Amino acid sequence: MNAYAKLEDRFRRISALGETLSLLSWDMQVNMPAGGAGARAEQVAAMRLTIREKLVDPEVSDLLDEAEAEANTLDDWRRANLREMRHRWMHATALPADLVEAQSRANSACHMAWREARPVSDFARVREPLENALALTQDGAAARAQATGLSPYEALMDIYEPGARTARIDAIFADLATTLPALVGEVLERQASRPAPLVPDGPFPIEAQRRLGERFMRLLGFDFNNGRLDATLHPFCSGVPEDMRVTARWDENGFFDGLMAVLHETGHALYEMGRPADWRHQPVGHARGMVMHESQSLLMEMQACRSPEFLLFAAPILRDELGGDGPAWSPDNVHRLYTRVARSLIRVDADEVTYPLHVILRYRLERALLSGDLAVADLPGAFNQGMADLVGAIPEGDKDGCLQDIHWYSGSFGYFPTYTLGAAAAAQLFAAARAQNPGIPQALSQGDFAPLVSWLRANVHGKGSSKMTDEILEEATGRPLDTSAFMSHLKARYLG
Amino acid sequence: MNAYAKLEDRFRRISALGETLSLLSWDMQVNMPAGGAGARAEQVAAMRLTIREKLVDPEVSDLLDEAEAEANTLDDWRRANLREMRHRWMHATALPADLVEAQSRANSACHMAWREARPVSDFARVREPLENALALTQDGAAARAQATGLSPYEALMDIYEPGARTARIDAIFADLATTLPALVGEVLERQASRPAPLVPDGPFPIEAQRRLGERFMRLLGFDFNNGRLDATLHPFCSGVPEDMRVTARWDENGFFDGLMAVLHETGHALYEMGRPADWRHQPVGHARGMVMHESQSLLMEMQACRSPEFLLFAAPILRDELGGDGPAWSPDNVHRLYTRVARSLIRVDADEVTYPLHVILRYRLERALLSGDLAVADLPGAFNQGMADLVGAIPEGDKDGCLQDIHWYSGSFGYFPTYTLGAAAAAQLFAAARAQNPGIPQALSQGDFAPLVSWLRANVHGKGSSKMTDEILEEATGRPLDTSAFMSHLKARYLG
Repeated sequence: MNAYAKLEDRFRRISALGETLSLLSWDMQVNMPAGGAGARAEQVAAMRLTIREKLVDPEVSDLLDEAEAEANTLDDWRRANLREMRHRWMHATALPADLVEAQSRANSACHMAWREARPVSDFARVREPLENALALTQDGAAARAQATGLSPYEALMDIYEPGARTARIDAIFADLATTLPALVGEVLERQASRPAPLVPDGPFPIEAQRRLGERFMRLLGFDFNNGRLDATLHPFCSGVPEDMRVTARWDENGFFDGLMAVLHETGHALYEMGRPADWRHQPVGHARGMVMHESQSLLMEMQACRSPEFLLFAAPILRDELGGDGPAWSPDNVHRLYTRVARSLIRVDADEVTYPLHVILRYRLERALLSGDLAVADLPGAFNQGMADLVGAIPEGDKDGCLQDIHWYSGSFGYFPTYTLGAAAAAQLFAAARAQNPGIPQALSQGDFAPLVSWLRANVHGKGSSKMTDEILEEATGRPLDTSAFMSHLKARYLG
Repeated sequence: MNAYAKLEDRFRRISALGETLSLLSWDMQVNMPAGGAGARAEQVAAMRLTIREKLVDPEVSDLLDEAEAEANTLDDWRRANLREMRHRWMHATALPADLVEAQSRANSACHMAWREARPVSDFARVREPLENALALTQDGAAARAQATGLSPYEALMDIYEPGARTARIDAIFADLATTLPALVGEVLERQASRPAPLVPDGPFPIEAQRRLGERFMRLLGFDFNNGRLDATLHPFCSGVPEDMRVTARWDENGFFDGLMAVLHETGHALYEMGRPADWRHQPVGHARGMVMHESQSLLMEMQACRSPEFLLFAAPILRDELGGDGPAWSPDNVHRLYTRVARSLIRVDADEVTYPLHVILRYRLERALLSGDLAVADLPGAFNQGMADLVGAIPEGDKDGCLQDIHWYSGSFGYFPTYTLGAAAAAQLFAAARAQNPGIPQALSQGDFAPLVSWLRANVHGKGSSKMTDEILEEATGRPLDTSAFMSHLKARYLG
């Protein structure tokens, strides 16, 4: 067996261990009773350390050197796989074991504190756990910066989106922070000039919403022989292609946000389900990164499922499944509800026009937290001030403010920008898909996602990590990531 | 850090990895969609191999030698911990890695085939997977026999119940196989001479049964902050003391068996929850073995919860929770229902008088399968013949015959005897508990399990694996395991 083949063997095992680590996290959010938190933190730490040991084993370093020396004997997929292995190796070796263990414990403790603090809107409960976890995140970022030659924040982004650079994000976000507030104003004015859409009367039984969610998931191509839908505090998607775990957050008083979150997460699930089967257990067979991942969820949620074409098909189903009646359930009214813009508080429920402003705020705040320019104690104030400045809405309590998102409280810094870069990529990909297959909107109006998903399979899902994000976009759309399609989409949908 | 302390560090991590492996299995039975089986098998195999690697690491062998040489410097708990570490090491090093991996895969495949074969009563579907898995079990048993100096079957029993020997089990089972059929006949005759108990009319909504199960679990001392109750094909209990996972199998047509299964599994859970907290992550802090584990489940189910004292308290609760009415719900009638003896087909639903006969059959069959004296293809016939001979009931299909139990189909050979040895230990412990605290039956008649559980905590749970099974029994009851208390119990309850 040559060096490269030996690496494939090792990474196959690492992949299975990573999947198990992910199940620990899914179970923690879906099933685990509160009392299990301490034991679970031990289990997660043990898994992280074990996976790390497998990566930092000196033999892996030797095998990587050896395989890279023979890289010209490998085909494209294997060469790309080797690049991805090296990337993982670099991040794993960047941090000493005791820091990994300390981070794992501190993040688990912070996550559990957040689970208690959020419902009662009590930031004080999570302040100290967050300070502890952040200090270790800073240590980790410094170590990763050293290993990668990037800045500390970029070195964290590099975990989620290899190749992401602050200079480019700064430019994109500066542009959006300038143009979007004006656009939001214009859209709101136009919206105000028309009669408000009718809001269907609730309550809407959770069980009916769950059934509706499952029905739409099937429509998108989700196979329940290969996955589940459960309820959690914060919707997410994890699992493996053969067993995807999608979660939702239901609210009896309204089904709009919960349903769209399901479709969003199903977009993530379809990406995973479409990963290249032959490379399923290798780094190159994994999803490219979180920009592309968010593009897949937002393409489904924002581009396809909020399109007038799809809502023409969906509105009667909503009405029937939820036992509704009257003009509030007309496709036109449902479309207007699903494209309503508001200066609102909750990012995951925000409309796509204001959404980037929520993200820009978090990007600024997490950079300031990481650099030490913003103290944890000052986070609630800074968050509320930023909401006022950027979105024009002020949280009444931290539950709707800086406690609303799980990310910082589970140690994720550098993730937020991928939502907005993903929204831009989604618009760019959807426009290209329609240009290459003009039958897609018509199919959506009949509830048929097959043409769209098949285009995504070929142009995104099936490529795994064989190319970098910009390369995949260039092959699929003719150019690297930019916001032009996103801005055109917003203008067409909201001012057209 | 001395050798012993270094071992504690390593075994702490191994304990956490073992807990994670156990969650993979819980999730597989509770949540996993069928399509996830292949991926889960990979994950389980990777975890097994990883745990094995940690045990067979040559440094562990050196540390064990070193710590054993200094054993006289250790206190009793640490010395016992060292003995348990050596025991685990011995079993882990007995099998080569490729055999562990092959077993894991073959057992997963067989388990999944069983999940499909059982509901449709189609043994043919599982024959080949079982043949494959059994061949590897035979290889493993031979390797363990070599390492332990035991016979192959004993070497497998030694995993579940260290110290178990076939000579002793043969003697006990020969005795029971002689005396029980006569006792069954006598009990059935006596039962037939009285009016049959009234059977409450169903259906009984699953949701009400689940609520009832939870209520009784709380009564026994189960804290839902530290555990859950879910539904599975085959009831079981797994998890960690802080997060116990109990499962049940509900049937709308009858609640009797499902409820008792919950109380049975809760007995297991209480044992785990009562493990010595200081040793929670070390081998010595784990449950002693499966004889003691089954004694705890059967003590709750058979000794305590089917006692007339407890049913006096429980009958009105059953009636109220399930919305029943009339004489079928009287404590006397409920007690007669819960002590009904029958020549029945399903082991887990069998009464305690015939139960050992179900076990003896399986003990004989699995020894014959392991030795090669019985071919897998001949199992259904041999099972049915054995049921006719020992129990006096003949399965109509393999669903109610050799497909009813999960054990062989997930690679567990050598486990079955522990049920009956556990039943004997349960009777012995319950008699000793009442002798030492005569207030226990009176407390049970008020639904108060605290005196009983507190006795068990002190005499069984809290001892972990610090002593061997017979030593624990001797300290608690004055003598090693025997069947005298069990036989006295049966005669008193069923012929008294």
